[in-house]
Amino acid sequence: MALKTLEDALIDELKDLLSAEQQIAKALPKMAKAATNPDLKAGFLQHLEETKGHVDRLKQAFELMGKAARAKTCEAAKGLIKEGEEVIEEDAEPHVKDAFLIAAGQKVEHYEIASYGTVCAWANITGHKDVAKLLHLTLEEEKATDVRLTALSDNLNSEAKAT
Amino acid sequence: MALKTLEDALIDELKDLLSAEQQIAKALPKMAKAATNPDLKAGFLQHLEETKGHVDRLKQAFELMGKAARAKTCEAAKGLIKEGEEVIEEDAEPHVKDAFLIAAGQKVEHYEIASYGTVCAWANITGHKDVAKLLHLTLEEEKATDVRLTALSDNLNSEAKAT
Repeated sequence: MALKTLEDALIDELKDLLSAEQQIAKALPKMAKAATNPDLKAGFLQHLEETKGHVDRLKQAFELMGKAARAKTCEAAKGLIKEGEEVIEEDAEPHVKDAFLIAAGQKVEHYEIASYGTVCAWANITGHKDVAKLLHLTLEEEKATDVRLTALSDNLNSEAKAT
Repeated sequence: MALKTLEDALIDELKDLLSAEQQIAKALPKMAKAATNPDLKAGFLQHLEETKGHVDRLKQAFELMGKAARAKTCEAAKGLIKEGEEVIEEDAEPHVKDAFLIAAGQKVEHYEIASYGTVCAWANITGHKDVAKLLHLTLEEEKATDVRLTALSDNLNSEAKAT
C-alpha cells in the first residue's frame, strides 16, 4: 500500500504544494504584467518574492523530514492557473481586468490557505512540530496576501465608482 | 470589447460558479462512496443537498439580473475535482484516505469561499443587492462546511491517535 500513514500523506501533500508554489511563481510575473493598477502590479511582484520564500521553506520541510524534495504535479494549481491565464487573455476594460486578476489571485490564495492548513495540522499530529512551525509562517503570509487583495479590490472599486 | 463593466464580470463569474457547483454536485457522491468514516460519508451527502440548493440560488441570481443561466466550464473546479479523483483512486489505508478526502473537500470549499466572496462584493458594488444577499447565504454555508470538515478532521485524527 502506497500511503499507509498520515506521515506518508503529509509527504505526498508537500510534493503537491511544491508543484503548486512552483507553478504560481511562474504565473505571477504574467499576472503583474497584465495588471494596470500600479499597486496591483507591485502586489503581485511582492507576492512573487514571498512565493520564492515559500518554495525554500517547503524544501527545508522535506529536509527536516529526511526526504528528497520532489514535486508532484498539482492538478488543482494547474486548473487555477489556467483560469488565471484566461483572465490575462480576456478582452476586457483595464479596471475590469484588474478586478478579475484580483479574483483569480484570491482563488489561488484560498487554495494555498486550505493546503497549508492541512499540512500544518498533519505535521503537528505526526510529531513534526518544526515542520508545522515553519509552514505556519507561510500560511500566515498567504492569509495576509488574501486580506491585502481584498483591500486593494475595495480601493479599486471605490475609484471606479468615483470616476 | 467583451467585458466592459463590472456587471459583465459578475455575470461571467456567475457562469463560472454555476459550472463549478454542477461539477461539485457530480463529484460529491463519489467522495461519499470513497469515505470510510460514517460521519464523513454523511457530511459529503449533506453537502450534496446544499450544493443542489447553491445551483438553484445561482439560477435565481441570473433571473434577478434578467440573464439566461448559462454555465461556462470552470477550469479551476476541473483541476480541483481531478485532484479529488486522484485521492479516490489512491492506494491508501482507510483512515489516511479519509484524511485526504477531507483535505480535498476543504480545497474545494476554499475555492468557493473565494469565488462567492468575489461575486457578493461585485453584486453589492453594481447595485444588485438582492443577488448579493442571496449568494451571501451560500457563502456562509461554504464557510460552515469548511469549519465542519476541520472539526471532523480533528476527531478522526484523535481517534487514529488513540488506537
